[in-house]
Amino acid sequence: MVLVFLESPVPPFRPTDEQVERLRARLGDTPVRLCRSEEEFLRHLPEARVALVWAFYQEWFERAPKLRLIATPAAGRDYFRVTPPVGVTLHYGTFHGAIMAETALAAVLSMVHGLLPFAESMRGSDGGWPRTAIAHQSRRLASDTVAVLGCGHIGSAFASLVRPFARRVIGIHRSRLPETADGIEHVLADRLDDVLPEADHLVCFLPSGPETDSLLDARRISLLRPGAVLYNFGRGNLIDEDALARALREGRLGGAVLDVFHEEPLPPSSPLRTAPRCFLYPHSSAFSPDYLDLWFSEIIPFL
Amino acid sequence: MVLVFLESPVPPFRPTDEQVERLRARLGDTPVRLCRSEEEFLRHLPEARVALVWAFYQEWFERAPKLRLIATPAAGRDYFRVTPPVGVTLHYGTFHGAIMAETALAAVLSMVHGLLPFAESMRGSDGGWPRTAIAHQSRRLASDTVAVLGCGHIGSAFASLVRPFARRVIGIHRSRLPETADGIEHVLADRLDDVLPEADHLVCFLPSGPETDSLLDARRISLLRPGAVLYNFGRGNLIDEDALARALREGRLGGAVLDVFHEEPLPPSSPLRTAPRCFLYPHSSAFSPDYLDLWFSEIIPFL
Repeated sequence: MVLVFLESPVPPFRPTDEQVERLRARLGDTPVRLCRSEEEFLRHLPEARVALVWAFYQEWFERAPKLRLIATPAAGRDYFRVTPPVGVTLHYGTFHGAIMAETALAAVLSMVHGLLPFAESMRGSDGGWPRTAIAHQSRRLASDTVAVLGCGHIGSAFASLVRPFARRVIGIHRSRLPETADGIEHVLADRLDDVLPEADHLVCFLPSGPETDSLLDARRISLLRPGAVLYNFGRGNLIDEDALARALREGRLGGAVLDVFHEEPLPPSSPLRTAPRCFLYPHSSAFSPDYLDLWFSEIIPFL
Repeated sequence: MVLVFLESPVPPFRPTDEQVERLRARLGDTPVRLCRSEEEFLRHLPEARVALVWAFYQEWFERAPKLRLIATPAAGRDYFRVTPPVGVTLHYGTFHGAIMAETALAAVLSMVHGLLPFAESMRGSDGGWPRTAIAHQSRRLASDTVAVLGCGHIGSAFASLVRPFARRVIGIHRSRLPETADGIEHVLADRLDDVLPEADHLVCFLPSGPETDSLLDARRISLLRPGAVLYNFGRGNLIDEDALARALREGRLGGAVLDVFHEEPLPPSSPLRTAPRCFLYPHSSAFSPDYLDLWFSEIIPFL
């Protein structure tokens, strides 16, 4: 039996009855049970061969003798903190690139064309007509270099999407380099310090973990060129947030678009909340009504 | 002689000395003179065969016996109000699509992924963490229909650019339909009322003129589906601004992104300035540092 327990306060992360019906139809004879509460989920867990869940706790394995697969839509390994018994596989989603690459492209193009920096500048009866200001900061992605820090399935999807718009796209990889001729300059992360001064836009998709903790510290932020824009859609541990807020306040950077933070929700006292040209989002870059449809399509072969 | 007089308070619209040097190099033997004042321009006008200008006045023709071509970067015919004598051609720029299509794509993707609507929602120490709000309004361009009202060189460039992102793209043409199989559904403007209820995003690029005055009046705005987003990058005469502000206030539309207005600068008292989910820009969608480079490349064959 495939047991589905994906409750969430975020609507796209909670399956509709119609989405579960479509999953059921595509799985044919395999029974699918949708649970709307933890109690209901735990009651059926002894019969489950597959659990589609947002969370799973170590003690639950005792009640799951038939379990072979735990699958979660999340991309980040930080969602699950369990050590599964032999014979049980953990499966993470790899479909997020289709959504997040578009959010990241929207962010980059919006910074380039002034849409985010001037989003509120004409608002209200005391609003202005900031024609000269927007002209002074205008730029064009066709003249700019985009560096993509973290080229897993999400970063790679973004690098491909932004490639036709930008002058150069540099993909920074943590493990090995791809061997495709895709118009992207692929480099290993040990060359990060050489790439930072080249980037007009540094777009980050790295996961959390000890090796990414404060990778973008004050020194590396200072290596970015004046006017460069920093974007983070990976995990918040990557950036020294105080150093970034300082660089924005001192006008050394052209701006920042941040979707993830050290602490989430972002504390009210965070210096990022008042830093200039800093656009903040609540870890929402993958939100989309088709989020679970994309995931179901991805995992059906494994069920 | 090619006489260049393109002074403007908007930096991308005023040639740098380097840009004029590059133009000179590409024109070879043809002399090019850069004028920084109207007085200087009028002094040299008697020798000019070509005038590259932002404006030209009817009485200037008397001083321009050798003039054969007046060229302006502007796309809109509203920039020039002259009747040239026989033998003098007026030439308008048609290079704006490359820049404006990217601005329009940035606007559409930013509305779809919540970047513009939530640009300021986390700002300040009393800012929030609007995760549920942004999730509730999340959508995906891959599920949406984009209607492009006005498919000249700018609208066509946008339709091609947005095509890979959207479920459907409908191009609404004022004159004749193209015969290319480009994945875009081309219709004539007499079908506008049928297209409006189909559009999740209505993106307008129409020029000014009697036939576009208030084309989007209260009745047609009410034909848009609930939650649809309206964008205008053409001319401001197109939209009944009071009716649009009302539709936004009543929550019937998902938002508006407007770059052009009936009266520019937009008056402080405009109801658009206080309408919800209404993002206003100062006629800046074509601003780009390479604006004049693109134009020079376009007109060199005619000089």
